Amino acid sequence: MTSPERPTEASSETDLDPMARLTQLLARLPGVGERTAQRLTFFLLRSPPEYARDLADAIERVVREVKLCSRCCTLTARDPCEVCQDARRDERLLCVVESVPDQLALERTREFHGRYHVLHGALSPLDGIGPDQLKMKELLARLDSGAVEEVILATNPTVEGEATALYVSRLVKPLGLKVSRLAQGLPMGGDLEYADQVTLVRALTGRRDV
Amino acid sequence: MTSPERPTEASSETDLDPMARLTQLLARLPGVGERTAQRLTFFLLRSPPEYARDLADAIERVVREVKLCSRCCTLTARDPCEVCQDARRDERLLCVVESVPDQLALERTREFHGRYHVLHGALSPLDGIGPDQLKMKELLARLDSGAVEEVILATNPTVEGEATALYVSRLVKPLGLKVSRLAQGLPMGGDLEYADQVTLVRALTGRRDV
Repeated sequence: MTSPERPTEASSETDLDPMARLTQLLARLPGVGERTAQRLTFFLLRSPPEYARDLADAIERVVREVKLCSRCCTLTARDPCEVCQDARRDERLLCVVESVPDQLALERTREFHGRYHVLHGALSPLDGIGPDQLKMKELLARLDSGAVEEVILATNPTVEGEATALYVSRLVKPLGLKVSRLAQGLPMGGDLEYADQVTLVRALTGRRDV
Repeated sequence: MTSPERPTEASSETDLDPMARLTQLLARLPGVGERTAQRLTFFLLRSPPEYARDLADAIERVVREVKLCSRCCTLTARDPCEVCQDARRDERLLCVVESVPDQLALERTREFHGRYHVLHGALSPLDGIGPDQLKMKELLARLDSGAVEEVILATNPTVEGEATALYVSRLVKPLGLKVSRLAQGLPMGGDLEYADQVTLVRALTGRRDV
């Protein structure tokens, strides 16, 4: 794996002690500081060597094999992805999410049987993220095919997510499709006393007959 | 790297989606749950592929190259380790520690210029850890060589660490060597009010003239 075809990079890296090098790389992971990185390095050294090798292999494989699904833009090792390939999925329902973890959270409910479209982000002009940085063109191309009847906007209930939902709804409505948005209100197990004002207002205005 | 010479193992593993497989392996790391593991998987997918490959390579290398130093039993990529090879280190002082992270903590102080011996644990009969599970034989063999004049017991100030220090001191004293133990007392920045009783007793009995 240490490629002999890039000697300049390798030589400077090989000089570093393998433990220091691994600790340095692990410390770049989110939520992992210098200390935790060192602890992980020692954990790997104490583990059965098969575990460490399997982990190295899994990291390599995920980077090599996982690509974007050419239809829904989710991350997948086979194209089209499992959901897009599954004929039992309702083509008429298209759920638009910001990210793959959001999609997985919806999948865990086992309540949604339509298809997904992953935007890979939300509109955020201050961060330089406009429609061109998201998978918007791909979304519109899919809607053109004519199978979709309802677009469910499942972007996050944040400023960026709301802006994205509004943007998509303005693109989609002229096509004559139904557009819906995930309900907002009090979360299960929540407490009125501690709910923020925006959530309370949404819960009030979105109230339902009993 | 996925070895074709073990087809039975590989076949069952390859069936699993690469992302699910990596998440599963990452979740075995200490302090990493199912959720964090998933977050790390997505982080690796979003990172530049060079980073993920370097990380995989570093994990492989650390397991392949890092061994115990044949003299002091620390973890090292070259044998003897850097400290054991360094002629400027005072051979007469031998600091006995439980673990490599403990050794590194002492090294960070830059105040100790002797050599180390890593026991790889502390006596803990309830966990089945007796002298034979630690690097005791290796320690005694080193003392036999005659260069050491003082053994500094730097095991942890815990029940197991104290027991280990006592055990080592009983082995070493008959050899006519000086044996010392790291001082115990109030930590810097600590508060008398919140110090535990044992620490306070140690601070009192170990008090020094001003």
